[in-house]
Amino acid sequence: MTGEQADIAAEIERIDRKPRIAVLVGGVGGARFLQGVRELLPEADVTALVNVGDDVWMHGLRICPDLDTCMYTLGGGIDTERGWGRVGETWHAKEELAKYHAQPDWFGLGDRDIATHLVRSEMLRAGYPLSAVTEALCNRWRPGVKLLPATDDRCETHVVISDPDDPGERRAIHFQEWWVRYRANVETHGFVTIGADQAKPAPGVTEIIEGADVVLLAPSNPVVSIGAILAVPGIRGALRTTSAKVVGLSPVIGGKPLRGMADECLEVIGVETSAEAIGRHFGARSDTGILDGWLIHSTDEADVPGVEVRSVPLLMSDPAATAAMVREALDIAGVQA
Amino acid sequence: MTGEQADIAAEIERIDRKPRIAVLVGGVGGARFLQGVRELLPEADVTALVNVGDDVWMHGLRICPDLDTCMYTLGGGIDTERGWGRVGETWHAKEELAKYHAQPDWFGLGDRDIATHLVRSEMLRAGYPLSAVTEALCNRWRPGVKLLPATDDRCETHVVISDPDDPGERRAIHFQEWWVRYRANVETHGFVTIGADQAKPAPGVTEIIEGADVVLLAPSNPVVSIGAILAVPGIRGALRTTSAKVVGLSPVIGGKPLRGMADECLEVIGVETSAEAIGRHFGARSDTGILDGWLIHSTDEADVPGVEVRSVPLLMSDPAATAAMVREALDIAGVQA
Repeated sequence: MTGEQADIAAEIERIDRKPRIAVLVGGVGGARFLQGVRELLPEADVTALVNVGDDVWMHGLRICPDLDTCMYTLGGGIDTERGWGRVGETWHAKEELAKYHAQPDWFGLGDRDIATHLVRSEMLRAGYPLSAVTEALCNRWRPGVKLLPATDDRCETHVVISDPDDPGERRAIHFQEWWVRYRANVETHGFVTIGADQAKPAPGVTEIIEGADVVLLAPSNPVVSIGAILAVPGIRGALRTTSAKVVGLSPVIGGKPLRGMADECLEVIGVETSAEAIGRHFGARSDTGILDGWLIHSTDEADVPGVEVRSVPLLMSDPAATAAMVREALDIAGVQA
Repeated sequence: MTGEQADIAAEIERIDRKPRIAVLVGGVGGARFLQGVRELLPEADVTALVNVGDDVWMHGLRICPDLDTCMYTLGGGIDTERGWGRVGETWHAKEELAKYHAQPDWFGLGDRDIATHLVRSEMLRAGYPLSAVTEALCNRWRPGVKLLPATDDRCETHVVISDPDDPGERRAIHFQEWWVRYRANVETHGFVTIGADQAKPAPGVTEIIEGADVVLLAPSNPVVSIGAILAVPGIRGALRTTSAKVVGLSPVIGGKPLRGMADECLEVIGVETSAEAIGRHFGARSDTGILDGWLIHSTDEADVPGVEVRSVPLLMSDPAATAAMVREALDIAGVQA
């Protein structure tokens, strides 16, 4: 083939094949966003790069809240009222653990959910990496998109707080303890990512980013979800060098997070809770950041130098509404939906 | 003190103190027998030496069926209809494990019960021996007698069978698989105790036997419960040398086991299912065996050379009836109840 023929062949292959979409996601918001992607593009080749910063060992079980929320939501097993955990859940094991005074006693460990953790923990102990375990679990749930942990390594978000029992002392607690036990309602000094210095992206993560037609940042928590994914060495770099456009969606509308406690997390890192501040926090790829495009809610305004900002309705009220958001994000990236 | 004074002091101490009773037990029958011991002698110093031959790792959980049956029965948490597992139990984790096609899928793993296994497994992984773990679990259940595993080491009963899928091949399966999955309904060639060559009695076990006023063998399965305890090196020797009398109770009435599948197990080792044959299988301490006394049911007869045999009602219909059996066993041993 001549160079021109090769170019034409590549162009035909590009037009012919399914669009490749990579999405960085956290838990509840990320899972709903993925429903919108699947709704809009049922045939696309979608890979969710899922935050594992919240993952934790409890009672000898490895718990991966964001992976499970995505898996259960897309697989039809989620409790839609609560937004996390299994529908039809019972809490008998948790009740009994409390009677043994087993710690921690503040985590919502459901009986059905425990089965997932048992399968995962046994596979991890047998030496399988989390990405392989996730694939095995998804054989049951068939989420319709590929769920890939950002890393197979331990790369956990911990939080430096003033000890509630001894405010003069600082100590670091696991993110889950800060989030679930304290509801972020404790004097907080910063986040640390345990294991970040040793972690590598899970197999395929950087290739997925590099080979994507578009990379989306779900409207997930910009600090402890998207930020924790970016804390895995190599992922930020892949976002900066991929030929795909990178488009983010604001998790904040009118200065308030739509769910979770993004405002509490942003305050810890000194970023204002606004679509503009978060967009600037991520920054433009043309500068030192990761964004080409930034979607904000219709009623918001934002100026993010070097980034194409567009205002559209950002309420994920149902998969169809979310699909409309995804279409806008793809449009910024020049990808046809 | 002169020798005579010392003898008198020892005699006073003996009369003054609580009777020390050691009981070798399996699961359901052993637990009910212990209820009778506790009923008869609420103030006695009772230690149950519990079979751990049935113990097994499943789904990353260490399950100790006999310890748990004793603990739940004496602690008021047992499902009395079923005889094992927790009252008010649910089975959601088990249902979900089956949906993941996780093996084994034939074991009754209840949601409440899982909490016990989680606490135990986490402590074992942290390095605590099973005896310490059992003590910790009993802090909740307060069984009223000390429950001591026969050994802290892995000493598991496995069963050599003809492979149901390939009858020409023999293979060894865990006792639980033989008992629960196959209901012993498979061609069986023998029992092997995995780990017996390395196992030691748990701390205190031989001292308890040596310091007891009487040692009782509960009417538990003579092969896979009592036999599995005796398979721990050192326990049989302690029973042969203790100054206490050793009195057993037949688990068989009129040639039939009262519960479980003692007949199937006895057949495997070539012992007839009768009170006499089991008594002879245990044998007299004056010969090479372990018994001083052997209690059989009123309607049975048995001649066991060197062993005092007595016929009394052996139906454990309630703790009071069981207490009457215990009183007879103590009477053979010359211990006042």
